[in-house]
Amino acid sequence: MKRGRNRELWEFEREMTSNGAEGRVIVGVDGGATSTVCVCIAVPGTAYFDEPPSVLARAESSGSNHNSVGDDAAKLALEKVLADALMKAHRCRSAVQAVCLSLSGVDNTSDQQRMHQWLREVFPGDVKLAVCNDSVAALASGTLGRLHGCVLVAGTGSIAFGVSEDGQTARAAGVGPLLGEPGSGYSISQQALAAVMRAHDGRGPPTSLSKAVLQRLELSSPQELIGWMYKDYSWARVAAIVPTVKSCAAMGDPVAVKVLANAVEELAISVKAVVRRLNLAGENGTKPFPLVMVGGVLEVDNGWDLCAQLVDHIKGFYPGVKPIQPKIEPALGAAMLAWCSCSGLTNSLSG
Amino acid sequence: MKRGRNRELWEFEREMTSNGAEGRVIVGVDGGATSTVCVCIAVPGTAYFDEPPSVLARAESSGSNHNSVGDDAAKLALEKVLADALMKAHRCRSAVQAVCLSLSGVDNTSDQQRMHQWLREVFPGDVKLAVCNDSVAALASGTLGRLHGCVLVAGTGSIAFGVSEDGQTARAAGVGPLLGEPGSGYSISQQALAAVMRAHDGRGPPTSLSKAVLQRLELSSPQELIGWMYKDYSWARVAAIVPTVKSCAAMGDPVAVKVLANAVEELAISVKAVVRRLNLAGENGTKPFPLVMVGGVLEVDNGWDLCAQLVDHIKGFYPGVKPIQPKIEPALGAAMLAWCSCSGLTNSLSG
Repeated sequence: MKRGRNRELWEFEREMTSNGAEGRVIVGVDGGATSTVCVCIAVPGTAYFDEPPSVLARAESSGSNHNSVGDDAAKLALEKVLADALMKAHRCRSAVQAVCLSLSGVDNTSDQQRMHQWLREVFPGDVKLAVCNDSVAALASGTLGRLHGCVLVAGTGSIAFGVSEDGQTARAAGVGPLLGEPGSGYSISQQALAAVMRAHDGRGPPTSLSKAVLQRLELSSPQELIGWMYKDYSWARVAAIVPTVKSCAAMGDPVAVKVLANAVEELAISVKAVVRRLNLAGENGTKPFPLVMVGGVLEVDNGWDLCAQLVDHIKGFYPGVKPIQPKIEPALGAAMLAWCSCSGLTNSLSG
Repeated sequence: MKRGRNRELWEFEREMTSNGAEGRVIVGVDGGATSTVCVCIAVPGTAYFDEPPSVLARAESSGSNHNSVGDDAAKLALEKVLADALMKAHRCRSAVQAVCLSLSGVDNTSDQQRMHQWLREVFPGDVKLAVCNDSVAALASGTLGRLHGCVLVAGTGSIAFGVSEDGQTARAAGVGPLLGEPGSGYSISQQALAAVMRAHDGRGPPTSLSKAVLQRLELSSPQELIGWMYKDYSWARVAAIVPTVKSCAAMGDPVAVKVLANAVEELAISVKAVVRRLNLAGENGTKPFPLVMVGGVLEVDNGWDLCAQLVDHIKGFYPGVKPIQPKIEPALGAAMLAWCSCSGLTNSLSG
């Protein structure tokens, strides 16, 4: 086994007894703009999963969306989280049978190949490797590895992704916040911050967001928001304002309510674009299909249930929709994918 | 005279004969996210200007909005443009009587003080120095130095700024593109790029922007826009797409028309916020006031006259508005400001 790109991360392997390499494992990684999670599971006895497998070890590191944190920081976060999870699982890399990296910001074949090549440097030999967009593992996390239906990820960014019964795929949004991902955590927060500036200079109505956001960011005036916004371009710290927006909406602030209503509508537009292109709801729009929904924006915060509103909205168009909020995290979806012959799957799912 | 922060820029002063320092001059600088312009004028014989003064020398360098290019790059661009203009004017710094830096991104007293301190290192001694937001010099460029009325700057960014007859000031927008400057060049371009992505993934209608924008950026697919957008965070290269948007609108593309109509409405909202707060149009809204309009967005491109649409829109609210499109550039406005006892003026205009 080579030493990896950052040798010190893999030092633990040298200190392992031979016992440490027994019991082969599967590794799944879910990397977003905000954080990266890695889980190890034991190689299962069956080809498919009837229920989610147990997690042997779990590790977390910083964001690994290369568009957000840059290529080098993304790779370092990934190598750290891989090493950390394997160390916790008491396994060397030689015990790894398959790895699936499921990453936001991996949007085309060239991104995929670049990351695949890098992953091969960390796991040389015959370890099965797969790299896919994070939406693919998110779908798998709701369907126990069966890739059919639509998934909506609404975290720092947002993306809708779907697979038809005949294996066709489609995606919508997932273009990063600067190219328009309305409904994402970044976009919701950015609109809230813009509303604070509009209230401040008279372009827009007063809003309770002003006080709440400034308090949340420990700033004393809207003018200070300008310096705050441009001192650091990471998307996650902006998206972190979403619970404050939900809290203001729950208290009845019309500006906050409007921002969140707009998010619901735009997330629904993304889902509808995918469902329509793949004909998931059939010709008359009533056929059942799974809709897996993940990400912080869809969690209930301060009494505001954006997910329920979204499901209501989508049911108006597609009464057969079967909403699924996975109990397991996307990294475990990535591990299940890695097992379900992920290399073949993700080749066809690079979209 | 000290040697400045980057000595090599000022080498020319050592080679100057004593004649080179004769004839005192005033220096005006206009710094935006895209470029920085510096002009030198001769110290005039009168306290005010009846017509724009002649330009002795002019120099141009890269952007100097510290929020966009960073503090160090901004200062280097400024020092370069100052040295270059003085070299072209055949003057040493000892011939300079006053300097006014008019900069986008200078939004509060702390920004102003920091830049003032830096400028003092470049021009030690008793040279009169002033630092203000770029909107102040833009107003001066339309009013020959008399600070009254409203100015709208719509370039890479957008800001409305006004001064009432009793010296009160107000501003709207000017918060940088991430905090919402609808109607700015960046925002128009960003909406056009988002529309291309929406057309691509089925969230929005087809638009001729897709072909036109990809051709303009020499990309072969909408998917490649993602890499293009995130490889470089400078705002100017995004804003440079505006003429393409205007061209599509002029050819009748409804998506491009909508983006530009939205820009007109939002720029009008900024102007109205300032006019209302300063009561520039009087109680019944009919009192005459000057509206100075500058920036690339307001120029006629490919037959699309956004400025005329905006004036029509504003006249609907304020029939007394007197639109002025200055024939001179904002840097010359900054030089006129520098002469009109700028230090006193800009202190009260820091808003």
